[in-house]
Amino acid sequence: MITRLHGAGGKLMQELIKNLILKNIKLKSAGSLGLEDLDDSSTVNLGDKEVALTIDGYTVKPIFFPGGDIGKLSVCGTVNDLSCVGAKPLAIALSLIIPEGFEEEKLEKIIKSINLASKEAEVPIITGDTKVSDGVDDIVITTSGVGIVKKLVKDSGVKEGDAIIVSGTVGEHGLAILLEREGFEFEGDIKSDVAPLNKMIEDILDNIKVHAIKDLTRGGLANALNELSEKSRIGMIIEEEKIPIKDEVKAVCDILGLDPLTIANEGKIVLSVPKDEAEECLKILKRHKYGKDAEIIGYATKEADVVLLKTLVGKRILEPPIGDPIPRVC
Amino acid sequence: MITRLHGAGGKLMQELIKNLILKNIKLKSAGSLGLEDLDDSSTVNLGDKEVALTIDGYTVKPIFFPGGDIGKLSVCGTVNDLSCVGAKPLAIALSLIIPEGFEEEKLEKIIKSINLASKEAEVPIITGDTKVSDGVDDIVITTSGVGIVKKLVKDSGVKEGDAIIVSGTVGEHGLAILLEREGFEFEGDIKSDVAPLNKMIEDILDNIKVHAIKDLTRGGLANALNELSEKSRIGMIIEEEKIPIKDEVKAVCDILGLDPLTIANEGKIVLSVPKDEAEECLKILKRHKYGKDAEIIGYATKEADVVLLKTLVGKRILEPPIGDPIPRVC
Repeated sequence: MITRLHGAGGKLMQELIKNLILKNIKLKSAGSLGLEDLDDSSTVNLGDKEVALTIDGYTVKPIFFPGGDIGKLSVCGTVNDLSCVGAKPLAIALSLIIPEGFEEEKLEKIIKSINLASKEAEVPIITGDTKVSDGVDDIVITTSGVGIVKKLVKDSGVKEGDAIIVSGTVGEHGLAILLEREGFEFEGDIKSDVAPLNKMIEDILDNIKVHAIKDLTRGGLANALNELSEKSRIGMIIEEEKIPIKDEVKAVCDILGLDPLTIANEGKIVLSVPKDEAEECLKILKRHKYGKDAEIIGYATKEADVVLLKTLVGKRILEPPIGDPIPRVC
Repeated sequence: MITRLHGAGGKLMQELIKNLILKNIKLKSAGSLGLEDLDDSSTVNLGDKEVALTIDGYTVKPIFFPGGDIGKLSVCGTVNDLSCVGAKPLAIALSLIIPEGFEEEKLEKIIKSINLASKEAEVPIITGDTKVSDGVDDIVITTSGVGIVKKLVKDSGVKEGDAIIVSGTVGEHGLAILLEREGFEFEGDIKSDVAPLNKMIEDILDNIKVHAIKDLTRGGLANALNELSEKSRIGMIIEEEKIPIKDEVKAVCDILGLDPLTIANEGKIVLSVPKDEAEECLKILKRHKYGKDAEIIGYATKEADVVLLKTLVGKRILEPPIGDPIPRVC
């Protein structure tokens, strides 16, 4: 039986995907990145060029939350997934499944938010599909997108000695959803970080060499680093104190017993770049509003085959979460 | 408030899309066909070539039905939408939203069915997303696809004097769903016609001139003809007795008071071709198993500005359905 933990972006989901989906599908590739790569997007070879294709379903609860809503989330998620394989996003396809009885005002608010995200990213919504169904408890949005590959970047590209860079503070999105959903009241102002990162990533691709880029969604930084490490067959040493985390996120995580490194983000990426490009990468990130808190948090090394977290008291293995501590965050 | 009728592919859905979606989105195009065209796919201009992009969400109930299931439906729908704008489908993206507690055996059966459809169409499943949610009552599948445009074909391309051809018998899919869902027992064997039509359409594109192609999904033949007529600003005269309908479909429609021309199909297209290409088009269709019952059913004419149905007793306007007589068919 499939449980919520299977859908959380962690180990159980990986197993479900491998055993039930990958095993049973024969035709899985049309270019350099296919279904089995499990990267943020796959690619289609067109002879002299490659296009990237990605899809994501959104069932976030609640659909409106501090910092955004399901509409903004669905556009940014697709834009970021295309960007993370080194593609420039060109177009988005939008599928809406609307519950019967849904208020038109709510739909209009979501569409307006989709419009704002599309304008900020400068990526048009070129096609769509609308269904009304009594089988969903709230609106479900699925977005797909195509982009033109500029420089192909794969999760498996991390190299010995690479600097590992995170583009900003972690943990806000998942926490903002949780606090809104449960009605917790805390001092401070935790908002989702949901944002389109395509322009920042394009600036990186245009100016430096990058070995891997991954966005930190379900499973958070812990999951993203472990995926990169596994696919690239290389270890990492990450310094805990270098990881940017807002004080209010730390405080709330302490109270609730959550690990901010496993919490979903929607406007952050981790990059693996050659050591001698690290400072330049940081400089480029910091000139963008979504990269101003970027930090070099560690490096890739063959001396380990796992992700090691160096804390003030020693080293521990940073495991990917089994499931997500906070379900329905995206 | 949004009701089931808004999601049925008829007039109400057109209004919802125009007033709430198109009006509020600014960036809507990246090539020859964009969001406002409301064609089966849109296109992205890549300079020397164009790719087509489409998306469709599936909430069909029940998920298994005579002739297919939600998996086969989702692959064929996307393959057919790409083909109908004159593109060769190259890759599919697959989003699954699985309810908590869903049996793994059912998921495996659906994935195997997706695999068979993908193999028959020869279109790979290159990327995907899996969510588990307590917010859906059954599995929801959304598929998106990209294809390379071979000869761009638009809904607005119907020309004066064109022959209107339907590729086979109409009404089976929606009726098969209805009978399965309601547990009606009838003599005969009404199965969904769901099928990938890309090879048949490619054969047509390679050999004759086509002015428009549209697949007959929600709203059936009546909706497809009216969309072509409106977008091309030209009338049609359709001969009722030429429209291929299986006897058992006619019989069940009579009993239930349904009009087979408004019932959804998932493996049929209507084509508008120059008069002197009509016989050749029919010949090509008939050499494919999904086109063996093809018929020339009428012609386009400026003498009318609506779709006129010539019956044994006279002529009547063939209206698009307001909503779908059978909800959740796809």
